[in-house]
Amino acid sequence: MSAAPLRLGLAGLGTVGTGVVKIVQSHADLIAARAGRPVAITAVSARSRGKNRGADLSAYAWEDDPVALATRPDVDVFVEVMGGHEGAAKDATEAALSAGKDVVTANKALLAHHGQALALAAEQAGRTIRFEAAVAGGIPVIKALTEGLAGNAMKRVMGVMNGTCNYILTRMQNAGLPYETVFEEARQLGYLEADPNLDVGGIDAGHKLSLLAAIAFGTKVSFDAVELEGIGSVSIDDINLAADMGYRIKLLGVAQMTGRGLEQRMTPCLVPADSPLGQLQGGTNMVVLEGDSVGQIVLRGPGAGEGPTASAVMGDVIDLARGFRLPCFGQPAATLATPVAAATSAPAPWYLRMTLVDKPGALAKIATCLGEAGVSIDQMRQYGHKGVHAPVLIVTHKATRDDLDHAIARFAATGVLVGAPVALRIEEV
Amino acid sequence: MSAAPLRLGLAGLGTVGTGVVKIVQSHADLIAARAGRPVAITAVSARSRGKNRGADLSAYAWEDDPVALATRPDVDVFVEVMGGHEGAAKDATEAALSAGKDVVTANKALLAHHGQALALAAEQAGRTIRFEAAVAGGIPVIKALTEGLAGNAMKRVMGVMNGTCNYILTRMQNAGLPYETVFEEARQLGYLEADPNLDVGGIDAGHKLSLLAAIAFGTKVSFDAVELEGIGSVSIDDINLAADMGYRIKLLGVAQMTGRGLEQRMTPCLVPADSPLGQLQGGTNMVVLEGDSVGQIVLRGPGAGEGPTASAVMGDVIDLARGFRLPCFGQPAATLATPVAAATSAPAPWYLRMTLVDKPGALAKIATCLGEAGVSIDQMRQYGHKGVHAPVLIVTHKATRDDLDHAIARFAATGVLVGAPVALRIEEV
Repeated sequence: MSAAPLRLGLAGLGTVGTGVVKIVQSHADLIAARAGRPVAITAVSARSRGKNRGADLSAYAWEDDPVALATRPDVDVFVEVMGGHEGAAKDATEAALSAGKDVVTANKALLAHHGQALALAAEQAGRTIRFEAAVAGGIPVIKALTEGLAGNAMKRVMGVMNGTCNYILTRMQNAGLPYETVFEEARQLGYLEADPNLDVGGIDAGHKLSLLAAIAFGTKVSFDAVELEGIGSVSIDDINLAADMGYRIKLLGVAQMTGRGLEQRMTPCLVPADSPLGQLQGGTNMVVLEGDSVGQIVLRGPGAGEGPTASAVMGDVIDLARGFRLPCFGQPAATLATPVAAATSAPAPWYLRMTLVDKPGALAKIATCLGEAGVSIDQMRQYGHKGVHAPVLIVTHKATRDDLDHAIARFAATGVLVGAPVALRIEEV
Repeated sequence: MSAAPLRLGLAGLGTVGTGVVKIVQSHADLIAARAGRPVAITAVSARSRGKNRGADLSAYAWEDDPVALATRPDVDVFVEVMGGHEGAAKDATEAALSAGKDVVTANKALLAHHGQALALAAEQAGRTIRFEAAVAGGIPVIKALTEGLAGNAMKRVMGVMNGTCNYILTRMQNAGLPYETVFEEARQLGYLEADPNLDVGGIDAGHKLSLLAAIAFGTKVSFDAVELEGIGSVSIDDINLAADMGYRIKLLGVAQMTGRGLEQRMTPCLVPADSPLGQLQGGTNMVVLEGDSVGQIVLRGPGAGEGPTASAVMGDVIDLARGFRLPCFGQPAATLATPVAAATSAPAPWYLRMTLVDKPGALAKIATCLGEAGVSIDQMRQYGHKGVHAPVLIVTHKATRDDLDHAIARFAATGVLVGAPVALRIEEV
């Protein structure tokens, strides 16, 4: 192997960074054979130099400052696995591009907030940013979307992309436990971010969705336009009742371009229990890509962890070693359109759960409100009850969120509703 | 868009070729934005010039001879969607490479039989052959394996890669129909190749498996070493009994590198009903990629048809337009090892169905034979029966095929067996 090695500067030696070191060291020959040249780490950077990470770093130069690492003359590719969307990660990424380095990053927050500016900076420098590890961990979904399906006009992109949320929701269902109990379990197992709202609030998954949407629809990343709703309000009652009707509740990201503009949602949704999304258990991720020629492609795999995330980083690194070059979001940043956010989401069937006072005509009044708002009923179930209140489940035919909200607003005037109804979208998959 | 167009010569105007024409024509702007340059068809070739294909070919030069097409000076990439592993497809592919053209092909048979020679020819010419469309239709699995997971030592690659076989097997189960009836249905629906044995004999799927194995394990394509068994002997009884024990029967391809060498099998196997492979219905394809870092990645999508296959062809074309270049099987052909075929497959649990004469001690004799051959029993079920024969089902613990065959050989001497036992491997997924 006579070709010059591709030299990595690795910033961040947590789980992912350590995983990258292990792959580079253990698979040097395999990678050189596949890439056509060796891949070598020349320098590393992390917060704490002394920490034992279970990997031999003695052959690498050390930099305390990731910006210094990013601009070293013996670094070709800056690998950023520190995290955080401001501060060191951003500074070092910008410095790397300015210094003419390519960047491989696992940082979804950084790109969700600054993707357009960074993509422009990369192109001005004649470099690129690769971020397979930022979305759905080990699943090569950025590659599938940007390259494999590049001949398609994309119709819709969906995904369960936060393993912690899917763990919580499936554990609630399997063990019959309330949200609060399982949340605490997840916290003790170390599954939650330091700020748990990044997970359970849907923010982390929303970051990922905004990156997929930019590639799929040729638009500037617009994380601020993602409709975000976390899983904190999903009750075990809803999980059980949805299951009873053949559905599962998932924190599902959906991006689609409609006549009304770009729709980006990361919200709890019902999906059919027997669909690939409905069958997804535990911390596994799944992304569904729908193109006009290819139809539906489903990708499933580990969304986090040392090995899977490092695998994604190395896929990007090997692409760069092979000389593959393409713009950050699949086309030049200047050609990405400014998306018009859809003012309202596409019509869908809805799951409605409410409690009614047990009086004659109560159900009829609710049905009338729905009809007057133009929302028709597909299924309705009234469950047996002991007290004075009757739990009622309704699945509507397709309706807009606006029409549904109009109906719900009318419910209040009927005086038959106890508390607020729960409304969850049913995503047709 | 000032860059020079990438010029395609398209040989074959059947379903796939027509699909390619439609994408190139309908998505010219989208493709140019993504590829950084236009993609244009300059010339086409097919058996019958006059046939109406529902696509406007008037702007393209016509060649009766695909070899003439492949060597035209106004062609940069030869797109071969004719099919057939000898004759015109092979001649034209070789001619294209010699003339310095890259090749994009959907032809699994050609590569399964001549992959190594063609890869060498491509490298000598400084060109490459891309074949995403040859394996699992629209699923970008070649890309995922060759590029996305390039940082992994692959452990195992599996797949349901013949939609017709999966249609037949799931239709048998869902409708309770015997093989012969559903085979005839599939024939009338046009799902079968002109030579149905390519489908139901596992040959087509075996071709695909041999290509995945070459990439995954860095070995020369060795289709001749694939253990092939079709679905013609799968009975509705076995499908029902397997279902009763929580399994589904699939025509499953498995490639893995073991201490005994490279194992490649395309055989009917049992998989858990609740696994992604077990849940796969109808003509959909699924490929499972297992790497040492990434763990398990599952890809699911349409395995055939105009749109999906043309999507895969266009993914390859756009890669070439972007300037991506890598060796045909992911590393230089000269570095691919000559695989040693594993003499025996890895140990597995087995499903055994047999009919015993209804005499005291019959079951004990069978159990003794298994024990003497070193095969231990995990589950055994004797089904109720009306006559003198008792159907018996056994699921073994892990055993080699050799040990199982020794046990089955001993069965004959007991005199309690009616007919031959059915033995199907249970693949742990």
